[in-house]
Amino acid sequence: MKYQVAIIGGGPAGYTAAEVAGKAGMSVVLFEKQNLGGVCLNEGCIPTKTLLYSAKTYDGVRHAAKYAVHVPEVSFDLPKIIARKQKVVRKLVLGVKAKLTANHVTLVNGEASIIDKNHVKCGEEIYECDNMLLCTGSETFIPPISGVNAVPYWTHRDALNAKELPASLAIIGGGVIGIEFASFFNSLGVQVTVIEMLDEILGGMDKELSALLRAEYAKRGINFMLSTKVVSLAEASSKDGQPQVQVHYENADGAGSVVAVKLLMSVGRRPVTQGFGLENLKLEKTVRGNINVDEQMQTSIPGVYACGDLTGFSLLAHTAVREAEVAIHSIMGKKDGMSYRAIPGVVYTNPEIAGVGETEESLQAKGVSYRAVKLPMAYSGRFVAENEGVNGVCKLLLAEDNKILGAHVLGNPASEIITLAGMAIELNLTTDEWKKIVFPHPTVGEIFREML
Amino acid sequence: MKYQVAIIGGGPAGYTAAEVAGKAGMSVVLFEKQNLGGVCLNEGCIPTKTLLYSAKTYDGVRHAAKYAVHVPEVSFDLPKIIARKQKVVRKLVLGVKAKLTANHVTLVNGEASIIDKNHVKCGEEIYECDNMLLCTGSETFIPPISGVNAVPYWTHRDALNAKELPASLAIIGGGVIGIEFASFFNSLGVQVTVIEMLDEILGGMDKELSALLRAEYAKRGINFMLSTKVVSLAEASSKDGQPQVQVHYENADGAGSVVAVKLLMSVGRRPVTQGFGLENLKLEKTVRGNINVDEQMQTSIPGVYACGDLTGFSLLAHTAVREAEVAIHSIMGKKDGMSYRAIPGVVYTNPEIAGVGETEESLQAKGVSYRAVKLPMAYSGRFVAENEGVNGVCKLLLAEDNKILGAHVLGNPASEIITLAGMAIELNLTTDEWKKIVFPHPTVGEIFREML
Repeated sequence: MKYQVAIIGGGPAGYTAAEVAGKAGMSVVLFEKQNLGGVCLNEGCIPTKTLLYSAKTYDGVRHAAKYAVHVPEVSFDLPKIIARKQKVVRKLVLGVKAKLTANHVTLVNGEASIIDKNHVKCGEEIYECDNMLLCTGSETFIPPISGVNAVPYWTHRDALNAKELPASLAIIGGGVIGIEFASFFNSLGVQVTVIEMLDEILGGMDKELSALLRAEYAKRGINFMLSTKVVSLAEASSKDGQPQVQVHYENADGAGSVVAVKLLMSVGRRPVTQGFGLENLKLEKTVRGNINVDEQMQTSIPGVYACGDLTGFSLLAHTAVREAEVAIHSIMGKKDGMSYRAIPGVVYTNPEIAGVGETEESLQAKGVSYRAVKLPMAYSGRFVAENEGVNGVCKLLLAEDNKILGAHVLGNPASEIITLAGMAIELNLTTDEWKKIVFPHPTVGEIFREML
Repeated sequence: MKYQVAIIGGGPAGYTAAEVAGKAGMSVVLFEKQNLGGVCLNEGCIPTKTLLYSAKTYDGVRHAAKYAVHVPEVSFDLPKIIARKQKVVRKLVLGVKAKLTANHVTLVNGEASIIDKNHVKCGEEIYECDNMLLCTGSETFIPPISGVNAVPYWTHRDALNAKELPASLAIIGGGVIGIEFASFFNSLGVQVTVIEMLDEILGGMDKELSALLRAEYAKRGINFMLSTKVVSLAEASSKDGQPQVQVHYENADGAGSVVAVKLLMSVGRRPVTQGFGLENLKLEKTVRGNINVDEQMQTSIPGVYACGDLTGFSLLAHTAVREAEVAIHSIMGKKDGMSYRAIPGVVYTNPEIAGVGETEESLQAKGVSYRAVKLPMAYSGRFVAENEGVNGVCKLLLAEDNKILGAHVLGNPASEIITLAGMAIELNLTTDEWKKIVFPHPTVGEIFREML
């Protein structure tokens, strides 16, 4: 059978594309070699948020006295936390599957291999297609550190399924993944050390707010080592019968090492470009080696589109979702184009940190003049009512013509309110225009309005 | 001394107007007979949200096992809950005061009385002004029920300062105030009965979602009596040494009565129009008896403005804030106008319910054709991760041209995400335009995007 659209990869890009195309009445085949939902749903966004919510609940109980609720004793059950996570993932994967079958998408469970732009092979079968969407996503990058093959380590996948808590955990890489796991294991009482090569955690987020978050977690016991390069890994003498890993590093203070029971490797991810016949298409690449796509997500070959982590743009599920919509609209002949002006980034620590649009760093790098407005979150009455003894900051970056360039929030629920700023940025609002919106009182979101 | 602006009443309308005018360099005098912040800050929005957060924390602890966190024992300390509420209010009142003094607003603590449109008397002093803003707010309406003067009852003010929990509480009026207190006392173990004259609680909110919320609280033990009219009140025989009140009612099933230790009166609020010389201005009234204002919040007398509950529009702090900005902008000669298209309404129960724009009921009453899209909150992965065993619904009302007419959410954090829909409505977005916004994943707010 010939399909109008063939999609390789069933993560957020792939399943969104399949749903949108199916809903529009197109014939769609989607190939997925593992589980529908991709990394995001099966071993990324969703499972981490489920674990983090258990940690948040545990934190909440331990600090309930701040709100005059007394709890003499509290404990957690790690296997049950993990089991609930599996249940949530299963439920959502089934939800994705149901949506796709409801939209008449043909699901093929297997490794697809591109023959040419109109033919995909899977198993013994060859599928013909008018358009092809490449949505193969990304995979954990394991840096070639000396000794890396001689020591046991976790990737995020292993950390998500920890059977028991290690006494200590060293995390190489203080990006979003590293910091979310650091926060999770710190909440549950693990001695965590984060080793980051750059001079601040959460590269890409607002640096000032990232530093505040780091200071908060340092107070809670996480050991942060910034501007520190890991040079080698080795086995260390075991502790209480458990083998340990020794992480040798170098920084401005010289050389040293950290010893921990477990090691989590979270230095980054890279696009999956091999194993599915991509080389047969001979697509144009960018200078950075990613697949070149235009504003409609079309590659150098008409009818072949690439969406999601594979393009190397932002490695975020919500970017992938929007890119997939744009690609399918383009196939349908519906006017649309991808905009990267207001892609939010969120770190689900407690408190959360979120940002959208430009950072001070990105504006300075571009030489764009701007004005930063900052306000403690305590200017929101609701934040005060619900965050006893907790601080937070909101920062807006404004252009000379009072357009909103960027917004950054440290404080709950940053993840949910950042979209307000995302709308203001994407819709090109000025401060006056945004201020005409009535925000319900009392809400944390009002903090933006307070700054306009 | 002569002021450019004299403001009577220091609630959200008054203090916002004073701040905006002061910031613009105008000379401003603000009269407040009680506490800065008005009902909202001192005995409304903020104190209720503080109490409700303690109740939410208590609920959270009791249900922590859903997230694999085990708590064998939990209790709460009502006096401490109340004390924290006072502390939060004090802090925020001081914040308002600081903002006003920073903007050079003259604060006069006393009862102001209007002499004419350019003169206000307070104590022995007479203040001259170019412009006058009336922001006297609203007060609890006590209905003339037979026996009302012979029985003790609480208003919201007393309920906020409860020294101990009554075994039972009857609430007359199932609007926002009644239902928020019902939820608070229900969480803390009080047997609550809500008596509502209309056929659904939370009049003005989406009826279907209100019914779902009511069903949830009925499961938790609240007794709801709808379409029920209270006909008289009387003292009842005391229970465990405590006097009780008997509430006689009539409904389709006939007559009956409810007996409770405490009675909360929350049938509604009415504008404060007396006691400050309003009659000396002889302002035009609307057919409903409210002060007539134009789009700039100006009354029938040039230079005299009315904002907030006094106008009888929506009795919401955030409406008052926006109205105050519009009034001051008008005085400043800055183009602005009040829009009531997207005023959010929120009820801070757990789960929260929130709505903005039109309801199905209001559209049907106007004869506007629309399309309702509904989705269970479980379509948001984050909602599933953080709401074990909890349901919720999101409803969008769309016009024939795919503009957003209304949005209604039952599920946390409805209060924070409803503003996204408010922006879409106020900015007149179509579904296609709104869908071009990238919402961070996973968030609860994504539920809107899922429905577009």
